[in-house]
Formats: sequence, C-alpha cells, structure tokens
Amino acid sequence: MSTHEFQRPVWDRGDAIDGEMLAFTIGDDPLWDRRLVEHDIRGSLAHAKGLARVGLIRGDDCAQIESGLTRLLESFRRGEWTVEASDEDVHSAVERRLTELVGEPGKRLHTARSRNEQITVDMRLWLREANAAVRALVERLHASTLSAAQRHAELALPGYTHLRRAMPSTVGAWLSAHAQAFRDGLREVEHAREFLRECPLGSGAGYGVPVALDREFVARELGFECPESPVTHVQHARGRAELAHLTALESLALDLGKLAQDLWLFSTTEFGFIALPTAFTTGSSLMPHKRNPDALELLRAHARQVVADRAALLDVLRDLPSGYHRDFQLIKPPLFRAHDRSLAMLSLAPRLIDALEYDAQALAAACADPKLRATERALDKAARGVPFRDAYRDEATR
Amino acid sequence: MSTHEFQRPVWDRGDAIDGEMLAFTIGDDPLWDRRLVEHDIRGSLAHAKGLARVGLIRGDDCAQIESGLTRLLESFRRGEWTVEASDEDVHSAVERRLTELVGEPGKRLHTARSRNEQITVDMRLWLREANAAVRALVERLHASTLSAAQRHAELALPGYTHLRRAMPSTVGAWLSAHAQAFRDGLREVEHAREFLRECPLGSGAGYGVPVALDREFVARELGFECPESPVTHVQHARGRAELAHLTALESLALDLGKLAQDLWLFSTTEFGFIALPTAFTTGSSLMPHKRNPDALELLRAHARQVVADRAALLDVLRDLPSGYHRDFQLIKPPLFRAHDRSLAMLSLAPRLIDALEYDAQALAAACADPKLRATERALDKAARGVPFRDAYRDEATR
Amino acid sequence: MSTHEFQRPVWDRGDAIDGEMLAFTIGDDPLWDRRLVEHDIRGSLAHAKGLARVGLIRGDDCAQIESGLTRLLESFRRGEWTVEASDEDVHSAVERRLTELVGEPGKRLHTARSRNEQITVDMRLWLREANAAVRALVERLHASTLSAAQRHAELALPGYTHLRRAMPSTVGAWLSAHAQAFRDGLREVEHAREFLRECPLGSGAGYGVPVALDREFVARELGFECPESPVTHVQHARGRAELAHLTALESLALDLGKLAQDLWLFSTTEFGFIALPTAFTTGSSLMPHKRNPDALELLRAHARQVVADRAALLDVLRDLPSGYHRDFQLIKPPLFRAHDRSLAMLSLAPRLIDALEYDAQALAAACADPKLRATERALDKAARGVPFRDAYRDEATR
Amino acid sequence: MSTHEFQRPVWDRGDAIDGEMLAFTIGDDPLWDRRLVEHDIRGSLAHAKGLARVGLIRGDDCAQIESGLTRLLESFRRGEWTVEASDEDVHSAVERRLTELVGEPGKRLHTARSRNEQITVDMRLWLREANAAVRALVERLHASTLSAAQRHAELALPGYTHLRRAMPSTVGAWLSAHAQAFRDGLREVEHAREFLRECPLGSGAGYGVPVALDREFVARELGFECPESPVTHVQHARGRAELAHLTALESLALDLGKLAQDLWLFSTTEFGFIALPTAFTTGSSLMPHKRNPDALELLRAHARQVVADRAALLDVLRDLPSGYHRDFQLIKPPLFRAHDRSLAMLSLAPRLIDALEYDAQALAAACADPKLRATERALDKAARGVPFRDAYRDEATR
Repeated sequence: MSTHEFQRPVWDRGDAIDGEMLAFTIGDDPLWDRRLVEHDIRGSLAHAKGLARVGLIRGDDCAQIESGLTRLLESFRRGEWTVEASDEDVHSAVERRLTELVGEPGKRLHTARSRNEQITVDMRLWLREANAAVRALVERLHASTLSAAQRHAELALPGYTHLRRAMPSTVGAWLSAHAQAFRDGLREVEHAREFLRECPLGSGAGYGVPVALDREFVARELGFECPESPVTHVQHARGRAELAHLTALESLALDLGKLAQDLWLFSTTEFGFIALPTAFTTGSSLMPHKRNPDALELLRAHARQVVADRAALLDVLRDLPSGYHRDFQLIKPPLFRAHDRSLAMLSLAPRLIDALEYDAQALAAACADPKLRATERALDKAARGVPFRDAYRDEATR
Repeated sequence: MSTHEFQRPVWDRGDAIDGEMLAFTIGDDPLWDRRLVEHDIRGSLAHAKGLARVGLIRGDDCAQIESGLTRLLESFRRGEWTVEASDEDVHSAVERRLTELVGEPGKRLHTARSRNEQITVDMRLWLREANAAVRALVERLHASTLSAAQRHAELALPGYTHLRRAMPSTVGAWLSAHAQAFRDGLREVEHAREFLRECPLGSGAGYGVPVALDREFVARELGFECPESPVTHVQHARGRAELAHLTALESLALDLGKLAQDLWLFSTTEFGFIALPTAFTTGSSLMPHKRNPDALELLRAHARQVVADRAALLDVLRDLPSGYHRDFQLIKPPLFRAHDRSLAMLSLAPRLIDALEYDAQALAAACADPKLRATERALDKAARGVPFRDAYRDEATR
Repeated sequence: MSTHEFQRPVWDRGDAIDGEMLAFTIGDDPLWDRRLVEHDIRGSLAHAKGLARVGLIRGDDCAQIESGLTRLLESFRRGEWTVEASDEDVHSAVERRLTELVGEPGKRLHTARSRNEQITVDMRLWLREANAAVRALVERLHASTLSAAQRHAELALPGYTHLRRAMPSTVGAWLSAHAQAFRDGLREVEHAREFLRECPLGSGAGYGVPVALDREFVARELGFECPESPVTHVQHARGRAELAHLTALESLALDLGKLAQDLWLFSTTEFGFIALPTAFTTGSSLMPHKRNPDALELLRAHARQVVADRAALLDVLRDLPSGYHRDFQLIKPPLFRAHDRSLAMLSLAPRLIDALEYDAQALAAACADPKLRATERALDKAARGVPFRDAYRDEATR
Repeated sequence: MSTHEFQRPVWDRGDAIDGEMLAFTIGDDPLWDRRLVEHDIRGSLAHAKGLARVGLIRGDDCAQIESGLTRLLESFRRGEWTVEASDEDVHSAVERRLTELVGEPGKRLHTARSRNEQITVDMRLWLREANAAVRALVERLHASTLSAAQRHAELALPGYTHLRRAMPSTVGAWLSAHAQAFRDGLREVEHAREFLRECPLGSGAGYGVPVALDREFVARELGFECPESPVTHVQHARGRAELAHLTALESLALDLGKLAQDLWLFSTTEFGFIALPTAFTTGSSLMPHKRNPDALELLRAHARQVVADRAALLDVLRDLPSGYHRDFQLIKPPLFRAHDRSLAMLSLAPRLIDALEYDAQALAAACADPKLRATERALDKAARGVPFRDAYRDEATR
C-alpha cells in the first residue's frame, strides 16, 4: 500500500510520509485489532468520564463523547463498520469515527492519554474474557474426562512404561490421569488472572501525565481492583499478562498433546484398544479403504504450535530496555493464534473422549499377558520374607 | 462451520461426518492454499500428460483435462474464482471445478496420484519462485549496502566493543561488514535450492503406485532434474525443503536484526551519528515532539519472528514416524508468515540504508576521543622493542 | 566407557549388555545426580519406615536400613563418597552402598518401589529447597532495588519511548518499575510451589503396586500435604514441577535481561547517566584503555539462556504418550543449568544496583532538553479549553 | 570463587576487582576451553611467525616462542597441564605459561592481536575437525542403513500413513528412505564447511590493527584459503560458523529422531515387526520381566535436545549491535553439548540398525491385511476405463 491508501495518522503534521515505511509499520495490525473494538470503546468511555470528573473536559463534551461512543459500539455490533486495513489501529479508527460523528468533543477524548496505555487496557479487558472462555472449556473437558474415567473404571488396560507392557491397570486409571492434568491446567488458567487486576489508565506513554487524574475512579469503572503503580511498570511489564495467558494455554497444550498421542496409538490396528467412530475420521484421496485419525494428528500438531506461539510472543519482549517500543505490536499475532487454536482444541477434545469406542476383546487379550503379573509375583515372595532384590532376580531369570 | 457448509470431500462415501471435526481439520488451510492454485494446476497438467503417455487415460481425456485446467488457470488469474473456505484444499477445489467444467475426464485426473505427493509438488514449485524472489531482493540489498559503504569509506566512526569506544574505524568499514553478511546470506539462499531438484510425482501416498508411470517425463515437464527416489523419501523428507527456505531467511533475519540495532542506537539523540529522514519516522498520539524509529523497531521485531517461525515449522516435523501425517498441514502458516515478513523487510532495508543522514559533527567529536588511540600507542612501543604486555600495562596505568 | 567400567545395574540378570548402549543411556546422569544424594536418602528413609509400618519388612530390617542410610548420609556430607560416573544413578548407588554396609536388609529397601517414583520424590524435595533459595534472593533483590529507587526518588532522568526522549521522569521511577517487576517475579516463584504439595511415593512404576502401603504416613514423613492421586498422574505429570520452576526463573530472567539492557545503555559514554565502578568492569587483552561491562553482557546472555533452558526442558516432555519414558532423564540438565545461572544472576544483580554511580551533570543536561516538555505544553492548552488534538497539532508543527 | 582464587587477568592493572563479578564473568568457560588448547597453540604459532615475518618481533624471540609453545603442546598432550578453573580462558592460560617458560618473549606474543579474533581462530580450527568427525560417522551410518535396506529389500512391511496401514511396501523401501535422509544430511555437513574458509587473524578487536601484518601468510600457515575481509566482518559474523555446524547437526537429529520413533513403535509387542537384542535393552528396578528400549528413547530425547541446543546458541547471537560483546562466550556450551550428543548418537545408530531382528511371521501377518490392496483394485478398474474417482467410490463403499 502507498501512503494515500491510509487514513492520515493521528500524529500527522503534514510532513511527507514514506508509503512503504508506513505500510511496513502498520502491517496487518488493524485486522487483528478488529477483535478489540468493543474493549477499546469501553476503555474510552471510562477515560472520558474520568476526564470530566477532574474537569479536563466539560460535562457536555463528555456526554457527547459518551453518546458517540455508544452509537459507534452499537453500529459496530450491527456490522456496519469495522477497523479497516487503511486505519493505523483500533484507537485511531475509533477516535476518527467519533470525531466525524460528534465533532470537536471527539478531539478532546485523547487528552492526557497515550495509545501506549490504551492498548494495554484493551488487552486486559480482552484477556479477562479470553480467560473466562478458556476456563469454561477446561471445566467441561475435565468433567467429560472424569465422567468417562468413572464409566470405564473397571475396564482392564495394560499400564505401559517405555511403551512396553508393565503392570495391570484400567481405562479408568488412564483417563483419571488425564482428568487430573486438566484439573491442574485449570489452576494455571486461574493463575493467569493475577496479571489482570490493575488498571494502566493514567500511565500515559509510560511516565504518567503532568495533570491530575482520578485513576482510582477509572480503574473501578472498568472493573479493575486498582490503578497500576508505579506508572513506569505499565510499559515495563508489557506483554506479561499476554505471556501468562499463553503459559496457561501451553500447559493445556502439553496435556492435549499427550491425550492425542495416547488416542493415536491406542486406535491403531496394532494396539486396537479404541476406535474413533467413522464420523470422526477422514478419508484418503487415493486409497479407498482408509479411515484416518486426522483430528488426533491435528490436535497434536496444534498443541505443538501453541508452544511455538508462546515462544514467539516471548521473543517480542526480550532484551528491550525500559519503556515502550513498537516491537510490542507483534504481541498480538501469536497471542490470538494460540488462543484461537486452543479454543478449537478444547472444544473438540471432550467430544472425542465421549465418542471413543472400546474394544473389549482386544483389551482382554492384551491384559492376559502373563508378564503383567511378574512384579506381583516378586512382591508376593518379598511379603513372604525373601529380600526383594533376590525375589526380583528369581523372577527376572525364570 | 458445520458439515453442510463444506463441499463434500473427495473421499466422501456417504457416511456421516462430524462437522466440528471436519472444520477443525480443515481450519484455515484453504485460505493459505490460495497462493498455490497456479502451482497445483501446473502439477496437474504434467500429471495428466504423464498418465496419457503410459496409457492410463486416453489422449482425448487428457486433451479435455488440459483444456479444462488451462481455462481454470486463466479464470483464476482473472480473479473469477479462488479456493473457498468451504473447500477442503486447493487439490479438491481444482478437481471439483475441473469435473464441473469437463465432466467425466475430470474424474480421471487423480488416477495413480495422492494429495500427499501433490502438495509436495505444489510447494516445490512455489519455493522455486520464493527462492528467486528472495535472491533478487538480497542482491539489491547487498548492492545498496556496498555502495553506501563505498560512498562513506573515509567517514570516521568509532569502532565499538562491548558498546564502548574501542578503536578508530569508519562508516565504510561498518557498512562493509553488513554488506558482506548479506553476501553470506545469498550463499544460504542458493543452498536452499538444493532441496528443490527432485520431482515427487509418482510417489503416491508415499509408497509408490502399483502401476507403471513415466516419472522421468513428468519430472522434466515440471522443470525438475529427476524424480525423487526412493519413493518413500518423499514423505520422509516432508517439510525439509520448506525448512531450508526458512533457514536461509533466518540467516538473513539475524543480519537484518543486527542492522536494525545499529541504526536504532546510532540514531538516538545520545549517539547522534545518523538520522532517519522525517518521512521514515512516525509520531506519537500524545507527545507532539516525537519522531520515532518504528520502522527500525519493527525490523528488529520481525527479524525475531522469522526465527520463531522457523522454530514453529520445525516443530511440526519432529519426532513423527515414517510416512505421511496430517500434522504436515501446519507447515504452511509459519512458512508463509516468515516469507511474507522477510520480503517486506528485505524490500524496505536498502531504502533505509540509502536514506540515512550522517551527522559529520557528532561523528568527528566522538572520533576525537583520545582513548581510541591507546592501542596504537602501545603498539608503537612494541614496535620499538618494548614487550607488548609491558607496553600495554604502561598505557593502561597512565 | 565399556560395560565393565560400570557397576552392574540393579536390573542385571546376567545377560550380555552392550557397553556402548549402556554408556549412551547413562550419559552424565550420575554426575547430575550428585546433588540429589541427600534427597534420595531422605526419601528412602521414609519409604523404609512406611514398609515397616505395613509389615512388608520387619522392624529390625528397618532399623538396620535406617542406621545404614544415616551413616551413608553422614559420610556423604563428610565428602567420603559420591555418585560415580560408573553408577547408573543415585538410586542404584545408594542401594548398592547400603547393601554393602548392612547386608541383606539393603536388598529389601526397594520392595514395592520403582525408580520412576523415587526420582520424582527426590526432585520435589530438591525443588522445595531450590524454590526457597530463589525466593530469598528475589526478596533481597527487590529490597535493594526499592531502596535504591527511594534514595534516588527525585533524581531527574528522561523517560524514553522507542529509545527516544519522551517525558520527564526520575531515576526513582525507573528503578521502581524494576522493583515492582521483581515483586511480580516473587509471585511467580510462590506459584511454582503449588506443584510440590503431593507425594508420589506409592505410585510404583506409574500404576501403583499390588500391595497395601500407608501412603498418607509416608507423605507426612516427607513434609508433603498428601499422596499424589491418582497414581497414574505421577508419570503423567512428569517434569511439570520442574517446568514450573523454570517458568518462574524465566519470568525473573526477562526482568534481569531488561535491567541489563538499561544499565548497558545508560553506562555508555554516549548516554553517560551511570557508571559501573572499576571493580565491576573488566579489561581488554589488546586495548589498554578499555573498561568493559562484561558483567552486564553476561547478565543479558545468561538471561537469554534461561529462556532456552526452559524450552529445552519442555522439549523433553512433549508429545510422549502416557506412562514413564527414559526421555525424562534429560529433564535434569536444563533444570540444573537454569537454576545455577539464575542463582548467580540473582546474587550479583543487587550488588550491581547498589554499586551504580550516577552522573548528576549528564542527567541534568539530558533532562534540560526542551522537547521533554512538549506534551505538558499541549496539555496546558487542553486544560484551557483547546481540543487536545488541535493543541497537539499546534505543538507538533511549532 | 573470590578474586584471589583466580590468576591475575592479562588485563589486570592493579585495580581492585570484585571477586563475585569476576567469577560470574568467567563461569565455567575455562573448563570448556580445555578442548581448545591445541587449536589455540596452533593459532599462536602462526601468529608468532607472522609477527616475525613483518618485523614486529625479532627472529630469536620468535624462535623462543615457537619452542615454548611446542613444549607446552607436548606437555599438554602428556596430560601434564590443562586450563584451570582459575584461568580466565585458554588464551590467558597459554600466554601465562609461555611467559613462565620462556620469559620476556612470551610477553611479545600478543602483539597486534586480540582475544576477540583468537577465539574465532581456535573455534574454526576445532570446527574443521568436528566437521570431519561428523562426516565420517554419517558416512558410516549411511552405508550401514543402505546395506541393511539391501539385505531386506524384499521383506514385506506395510506402508503406513497416519500410522494406519496404507499400501504394500518393504523393509528395504522403509530403510532406503532413512539412508537417503542421511545422504541429505551429509550434504548439510559439507555445506557447514563453507563457513570455515577464511582466517580471522589480523582483525584485532574487530577493527584491524594499526600495524602492517602479512595476513595472507598467516592464513596459509593455518590452512585457510584467505584472510577474512573486511576485518569488521569477523565479529559481525561471530557464532555463524558454529551455528552452521549446529544447523547440520539439527538436520541429522531430525532424521535420527524419526528413526528412533520408527524403531520404538515397530518393536512394541503390539506391532512386533522388529526386536532389539537383549544386549541393547535395559531392565526395570521394580518389574522383573521388563526389557526396555531406553537407547531408542534417549536417541529421541537427545535428538530433541540438539534442536534445543541450536536454538540456545542462536539466542546468544540475536539482536546484538555490531562489534564484539561478551555474550559470545556463551556460544560454547550449546555448541559442545550438541556436538557431543550428536557424536554419541551417530556412533550408536548404525549398530542399532545392524542389530535389529525382524519377525517374519508378524510382518507376514500384517502384510496379509486385504485393505492394503484396496488402491490396487481401484487402479485396476481405472486402467480398464472406469474413471478413477468412480472406481475409488466403488471400492470405498464395498
């Protein structure tokens, strides 16, 4: 895109702007910003009220801003507008449209505020919703897995170590471990909320603003516990709430990856313990007989990519000196990628678990393997007084 | 999306298909596939000719297929159709449209072919073009940097170690190192072509096909040196040509990241050696005086993300046993992401280098620092017979 | 090493063992295990008491085991023995030495226990101490940083965005952000303890043991809250407590990396705001005048490596199906590497902060830059009724 | 360690040095340096000859230096000394011992040389040997695998896609893919040599030295093609030759990881196609019957860690501005770790392949699965004129 394809930036002062440079800096950021429109407007509503409260804008200006923002929110929800590729970002897009709608009061909205803090507010409001959405899905996944574990509590399954038959176990014990892992994951999701308690508004570009604001009021308006302090902490900690979200998702991804591997192995012809119903399999373009576990393979692959997404986000943050840097813009793509794929995985996983079909005959045959009882025999001898290490050797060399 | 929102897959046999499972497996793959339409059609044209050559389809079927594919290519180029989110992939989309266009011969195109090999052909054709595009940009970048080094060959600049003034040097010597690094990068880009010499067609799902094909003919038709052999190597090496492309891009990204850091530091008020023209800077929404080097910061940030993209692609491949797995679908997003951002960086970088303004006064002031000559003084003594380590100590404790 | 250079493994049954294979599997694991000797003995003491309590060994056997283990612990602390490269691991080394010391009762110690669970106990006992050590150092670092912030609360320092002068600020505000980040890090260290509450003993190879144990008793003996349940969760969650430790260390590393970058920049000749005392700098082998900030550069570099260590540990865990796998052995190197370097960094950092010398003249000169007040001027106009966006443009184009 | 536990650094000028700072910067670098002693001495021999050649030292000084270095090399090879933890690095250790041995001429050795360039010479000399060692092992691995493929060329094995039986294939075809992958790996090993052609000596601290040296002569003495130019490129490209070595090792690790996964699956009871001889398996401390494939699991785990090591090395390099930084010290640990584990893997792998036992009965049973012929049946119909897509549907719905 060349310059004339963009809206004039809010910081435009009439100088020439290199079009390629501008396009490079903006990138696809406006498209990612589409999911922040509602949060940006909520943040602006609180900021405007805060400005009026301390007399930096007049009450009637504030009323017009509120009315304009509310109308923008409604028309956005109706699908009448969105952030365009030609906007610099959601903040510019909302300020521009507000000014078009209500005139001069729109030009007062950004008083004593920086986009540096605005984006952190938007992200935290978004993260609160994202966290709740993940939490609900993990609770459902945990419940489904636990329920399946209970249904199959007594169904015998070999316990494996090194993927070699080791000890007698059950489908219930196997699924219980998965359920407990999801329970652990829930704790991680809850921990990620710790990063969302404080309100950045009032921190300006990272060094506060040389006017008195009522930061407590604005924080409460937006449902935060308190203003973030010191103000320098806001940009210092940039990306850390987002990283915490991905740390929780990574934890869940590790668990989903293990689940995928188990199901993938146990549903082979060779193991044959479980089957995916046909409706959960795909076919081949060449081989007529194939029913493939693509859903499991993509569960595994997306789980790996969540780890990669977290690493990508972390790489944005590293080794930057104090203060805001434009690098932070690239926090969004890995964050949203990881979130989207995690939601898809967490949504599908309990349905896969519910759909599994167990092959009682194959399970019984595998569990009849006499080697599974070798440890029991050695421990019987130990209980009768033979030193365990001797009983072990007897059994090992039978 | 639910099932009815998708085209029936090519492997459909009338069974129920779980809509969420299908949507999960397809994901946004059809959208990425849009950039493979031309390559897919080229591959299919060669395959059809190959089938006719060995008598697996009749000459008139082949002619109809060729005519149909050619019309599809033209209409695609005119923007009349593309791969839709409702298609499973580009291969299905082309086969379906071809059959709609020419009828029964379309149903013969996929004879003795698998999508497993088809995507590898498409990707290699795409990679050949991608490699050439990168190469051209790196050549331009190298030339620009070298030319700037020559223009400023004699302009004094302190040489830094540990970011502390170390030895006398020049802008020319500093830029020459960058130029030479880009020269090294070109060698890496050339090396990545090594992975693109062989044609996978004829390998089927990874184990060949139980019919005789003329693989040599098809390979030549598509501009490859020879068929890939053994056929099992095709899926075994899945993703390695793509990884090689990203290894080359990563190498360039490391160099661009270093360039960005240098420019970012040298253009601070405190160093003050160079300036970006206003047209290559951005402003602040809050602070009227700011002219910011966002382009440099995003150069650095995107360079880091290329490394992350390569790691993400590699993570798709790891630890999978032999043969095709659906995981491979996720090769595309990190590949295309890294390629797109690398092209943007490589395109902008030489223009930044050309636009730099040097502050002769600041450079001269820094280069007058007497400490820069301490080593010369010690070496003078050494040349006059004082053991160097003694001359060093004399100078160090002056 | 060839086979005869190793002690016979505890699982030896007289078969030939390939020496290269054995050396490959053992690697340098016994050397890492040296730091687990005390924890392994504590775990074995509790296990022996537990066996006696349920009658699996006799009271006098237990007494001999306890006496033997206590003597081994004391002689280890006196440096009289350690785990040797020729031992398979700490568990084998202790069992072997115990049997040498007390005879037959030693061969009863491993009754109803697996090394799979034993190592998880050792690691959790070690992690409890590691966590406490990190916590103490972070508390000291936080206190030092906060104290320095208070000492320099009023010392003016430009606030930077994009590494360009942005707004007036202070050394106190800058250091306060670092202090608050360390406070956040402390929360992460505390969170990592959540993974250390449960006792794995009694889980056997991952599927429990076919004898009744008093797991509650053993858990309490070792200071855990309760036994880990279900038993299948122990191997399912392998490495997650270790990963949590590194997640906390990674969080601290990000903060230390930022600190290092700030100090590295601010102590250049060009910024000149702070200086490291000579005693905290190093010299050059060639250039007599150099005083280099190697400590800062290695702080940065080690901080990056903590991130790499965490990624390395996570890579051990990924995509493994349920149950124990020998891969888990490789959890130790990245864990111990990251811990050791973190301790060194956390120990040095507060001393660096305390040692900093501030250059009042350079700070004052930088803070006199009139651009730092541009925002204040625009906000003054806004407070007097000019729409902010207009006041901003006025100021921007002055 | 406190200061007095270290040798005085070569840059010591009598100032106080903080002991913790010094210990932190030195770390375990001297221990890694032990493998560079011979290379460092070779580099110094060439440098001394070069100094004499241009008259910077006298001929008799040079002779004494040569004699001293040669004696140091011999005594090192006899194990009479090594780099100690109390040395700053190999360069300091050699210079110190030389001066102790030959007196004043030793203090002339470092004339017009920096440790910054010295370490790059040492590393390239080491990398040449490392590259040759890897190459020899990969050639052997390739030969073994190819030979095994030929021995079992006709032994039937199901071809898998999605780990589901897909098409008839053979053990030979399966192993041939592995062999070809190792062949590809060899090409990568050869490519890594490209980074070792040029000699850094004469580049000083990164900006050349203000005296005339005969760089061509020194380069030839050490077996390089030419001096590296421009001199600024030496530190600019720091770590890139090492990274190239790890890129080649990573490529091999991906192949070894795939081999490990195949062998691990095919040797389960459930697949049962191959068996590891008992001598290549390990046992359990608890379960007497177990024979475990630990060697395969550690092959997989170490392969993953090579990838992690490469990422760790790359992280040292990133985003540093031009010139030398102490961060580069941390290049060594991931480099040497990855090299050591790669050598162990490459050495063991061909012996595992040779030792495999094939279960003809299990293979025959699996290959008799009629589904493996479904594609052949559809292609038969296609060859007889039925459109392939119709023949596929017929077969799919039989």
